[in-house]
Amino acid sequence: MKKSLGKKTILYTHPVLMVGSYSVDGVADLMAASWGGICCSEPPLVTVSIRKQRQTYDNIMHNQAFSINIPTVKYVRESDFCGVISGKQTDKFHATGLTAIKSELVNAPLVKEFPLALICKLHKTVELGTHTQFIGEILDAVADEEVLSEKGMPIIEKIQPFFYDSASRHYYGIGEQLIEAYTTMIL
Amino acid sequence: MKKSLGKKTILYTHPVLMVGSYSVDGVADLMAASWGGICCSEPPLVTVSIRKQRQTYDNIMHNQAFSINIPTVKYVRESDFCGVISGKQTDKFHATGLTAIKSELVNAPLVKEFPLALICKLHKTVELGTHTQFIGEILDAVADEEVLSEKGMPIIEKIQPFFYDSASRHYYGIGEQLIEAYTTMIL
Repeated sequence: MKKSLGKKTILYTHPVLMVGSYSVDGVADLMAASWGGICCSEPPLVTVSIRKQRQTYDNIMHNQAFSINIPTVKYVRESDFCGVISGKQTDKFHATGLTAIKSELVNAPLVKEFPLALICKLHKTVELGTHTQFIGEILDAVADEEVLSEKGMPIIEKIQPFFYDSASRHYYGIGEQLIEAYTTMIL
Repeated sequence: MKKSLGKKTILYTHPVLMVGSYSVDGVADLMAASWGGICCSEPPLVTVSIRKQRQTYDNIMHNQAFSINIPTVKYVRESDFCGVISGKQTDKFHATGLTAIKSELVNAPLVKEFPLALICKLHKTVELGTHTQFIGEILDAVADEEVLSEKGMPIIEKIQPFFYDSASRHYYGIGEQLIEAYTTMIL
């Protein structure tokens, strides 16, 4: 009834996670990753899968820390660049003009221009194949004041994040708000 | 400079993954989960985090298999219902009117009305705290013919998936297509 597509890594929606880390020499690096997301509520954990060849892999192993930065749509090209170009050859903060700011909690850089970041201490690694899963404990979420509600929660329409579609290999913006979650007790 | 929000599990965008499984008695169950996503390219792996109290937890442990179904926006209320109501008390396929179809590859049900599904064999579990991470090997991705391009790839505008915003606790639809990924070599 349904058509077989083979062993494809397609689902909706993949996030665009910008992973911040420092090299052993203290050079700030930024990598785009879509294989990741929240994986536990308590302790609060986030996962991101990274290939061993990546500069970010070495950096997280060295510092046992990283940041997950959520880019806003204005920076979609800079974000894509950080998924194409390797930190082994290029200083990506310099190349993109983005600004690395040092976290006070761990040895990982945050991106000043991106409205939301999770500051993470490495909790565990899981070897999976091409990718290693880095599971980070969220020590703090930080955001720009101007994207927050009066109650201090991020407002998605102000953040204007985007996501990745692995079928078309394009990025997409967010659409309209639908129903409130956890409210449908009766159909 | 950035404001601390505490240890919040907020990032963008969380998927809405509808996990299909069978109980030991052969009752098809369907659970909504947003802590998950693709976690490895080769082998092709997908992860979804589930609390031990859930019927789905027992079901996957028993069958060592599950499906990840991607709902279309038309079924946002049925999907939300499957995140609120427990399969321990309710036959959710019956309650929602959705149709369970048996996979030929593993002992897990697919949702006939949802346009895309990943058929998974349990690869590994990782204990994390409130949640256990179920990592599944994608044996096949299957889709409805009418959401596929001429090349046989899913078209997101035809699937019309939605995602979850954990800050506002609302679902959102998809927005407009932005740039092609992996193309930005120069800024």
